[in-house]
Amino acid sequence: MTVLYNRVALIGLGLIASSMAHAMRRAGLAGEIVGTARSAETREIARDLGFCDRIVDTASEAIDGADLVVLAVPVGAMGAVAAEIGAHLQPGATVTDVGSVKRAVIEAVAPHLPDHVHFIPGHPLAGTEHSGPRSGFAELFDNRWCILVPNGTDTPATERLIALWKGMGSNVEVMDADHHDLVLSVTSHTPHLIAYTMVGVADDLSRVTDSEVIKYSAAGFRDFTRIAASDPTMWRDVFLANKDATLEILGRFTEELFALQRAIRTGDGEVLFDYFTRTRAIRRGIIEAGQDTDAPDFGRTGKHD
Amino acid sequence: MTVLYNRVALIGLGLIASSMAHAMRRAGLAGEIVGTARSAETREIARDLGFCDRIVDTASEAIDGADLVVLAVPVGAMGAVAAEIGAHLQPGATVTDVGSVKRAVIEAVAPHLPDHVHFIPGHPLAGTEHSGPRSGFAELFDNRWCILVPNGTDTPATERLIALWKGMGSNVEVMDADHHDLVLSVTSHTPHLIAYTMVGVADDLSRVTDSEVIKYSAAGFRDFTRIAASDPTMWRDVFLANKDATLEILGRFTEELFALQRAIRTGDGEVLFDYFTRTRAIRRGIIEAGQDTDAPDFGRTGKHD
Repeated sequence: MTVLYNRVALIGLGLIASSMAHAMRRAGLAGEIVGTARSAETREIARDLGFCDRIVDTASEAIDGADLVVLAVPVGAMGAVAAEIGAHLQPGATVTDVGSVKRAVIEAVAPHLPDHVHFIPGHPLAGTEHSGPRSGFAELFDNRWCILVPNGTDTPATERLIALWKGMGSNVEVMDADHHDLVLSVTSHTPHLIAYTMVGVADDLSRVTDSEVIKYSAAGFRDFTRIAASDPTMWRDVFLANKDATLEILGRFTEELFALQRAIRTGDGEVLFDYFTRTRAIRRGIIEAGQDTDAPDFGRTGKHD
Repeated sequence: MTVLYNRVALIGLGLIASSMAHAMRRAGLAGEIVGTARSAETREIARDLGFCDRIVDTASEAIDGADLVVLAVPVGAMGAVAAEIGAHLQPGATVTDVGSVKRAVIEAVAPHLPDHVHFIPGHPLAGTEHSGPRSGFAELFDNRWCILVPNGTDTPATERLIALWKGMGSNVEVMDADHHDLVLSVTSHTPHLIAYTMVGVADDLSRVTDSEVIKYSAAGFRDFTRIAASDPTMWRDVFLANKDATLEILGRFTEELFALQRAIRTGDGEVLFDYFTRTRAIRRGIIEAGQDTDAPDFGRTGKHD
C-alpha cells in the first residue's frame, strides 16, 4: 500500500469515478477521497454507499487541499467545472479527466487552469452499459488500458498519475490528443453510433415487432443492444466533441458498406468471402492480446452463475 | 429418455450438427446418430471425437434407413445435397435443415424431395464465432430459440421435430419463411454485415495500426470483432440467399445513419440524445426476456475462469 495522493477530489460520481474510488481503496492509493456531484440525489446515493471518505456539495469544496483532481463529468460539462475550480486549485496539484475525447476537453479545460497545476488529460478504456454511482466496482480497470495525454507536462507528475492507474489495475499508454481521438473513433465512437443506429432501425420496423427483436436477439443483435444501452448524455457529448474523426470514419464506413451492398446486389460471392475472411485475423489478435476470451459460451455467463 | 427418432442422419458436421449430436446424446433422443461431411478431414476429426455412432463417406449412405435427415451444410450447398439424397429417402422420413435463410433453402431443396417425406425447414438461433466439428457442445441450444417453418406439413411430424428441439434445450417458434427472413435480417444478418464492415474499416486505416485497434478494442469494438469472426462461407451464402431483406434493412440503416451523421455535423445534440435514450429500452427488454445477463463484468468471463 503506497499512498500516492493525500487527497483525491472526484468531480462527478458516475460509473468511472465510483469505480476509481473502489479501486483506489482496494490498493490504498489515496489518503482521503472526497467526492461531489451536481445532483443532490447522486450525492445522497454516494453517501449511502460510502465509497468516498467525504461527499461535499460543490466542486470548489471538493478540491480544497486536493493534490489530485479528477474531472469525471460528461465531456460537454468539463469546461464549466474547470471554470468553477480553476482559481482555487492548490499549487502543484495534478488535474486529470476521464473523458472519451481528448482534443475538445483540452480546449475546454486548459484555459481555466493556472500555471501552477499539472494538467494531464486521461481516458480509461473501460466501462459497462450501466451508469451512475451504484454501477461502480473495483475491478473495472483491471487489465484494461488507460491512455494519458501529458502533452509535455512535468515528468514526475505524469509518473505519479501513471502509478495511480497501474495501482488501480490498468495498463497505461501515452499518446497525443489527436491520435487518441482518431483511434477511439475507430475502436469505440463509430461502433457505438452504428450500434445505436441498428437498434433504432429494429425498433422502427413495423413489420417486425419489438418482442420478436428481443426474442431473437441472440443471433448477433444482442451485442449491439449492449453497446447501444450506454449513457445517452455521455455519448451525445462524445459525438459532438469528436466530430471530425467520427465523420471521417463514418465516411469510410459507408464507402465500404456500399461496396459490400453492391456485391450482395450483384451476387458477387467472392468479394464477400474475401472480406469476411480478412476480418477473422483481427479477432485472433484480440484474443491473443488478452482483451477477450475464446470460451465458446461468450455472453452467456448468466447461465452458469 | 425418450427416443424420438431411430436413426438421425447429420449431413455436414460443423458447429450446429456436432452440437446437435452432443445435445441429442445428452437427452437420449436418437437411437443412432450417423454423420457425414464432404471433407475427409472433417469426417476424420468427427470419428476421433466420437459424437456420432457412425461416420460414413457420403450423404446417400448416411440417410439409409434414417427417419430424420438434417441438412447442416452452408445455405448455398443445400440444393446439391437434396438432389443427391432425394431419390433414396425412406418413406415417412422427416427432412429438416438448419440454414439461416428459409425462403431460398425451400426453393433449392423442395423440388428434389419426394412426396412421401416431410420437409420441415428449421433454423436454430444459436452459434458462436467458431466453426467445425471441434466447436460443438451440448449446451449450445439451451434456452435459445429454434424457428421451424412447417408450411402446412403433416402435424405429427412437426410435433415430433418440435419435441426434438425442446429435448435439445431449445424453445421453438413456428413462422412462415418470408417473415423469418425479414426478422433474421434485422436481428442477425444486417448486424453481421455491419460488424464485418466496421472491422474491415479498422483494418484498412493506415494511420491507426492493427495493434492499436487490438489493444484498445475493449471500448466497443470487441463485440464487433466477435461477430465478424464468424464462418465466411456460411455468411457469404446467407447474404446471397437473403438478398432482398438484407438490402431493404441496409437501406433503412443507411437512411437513419445519415440522419445521425447530419445531427453530428450540425451539432444537434437533442436529436442524438433522444435517439440514444430510445434504444436503451430495447436492451432492458432483452435482459427481461432472459436472452442476456445484466452482470456488470460482461465479456470478461475469462478473467474469472
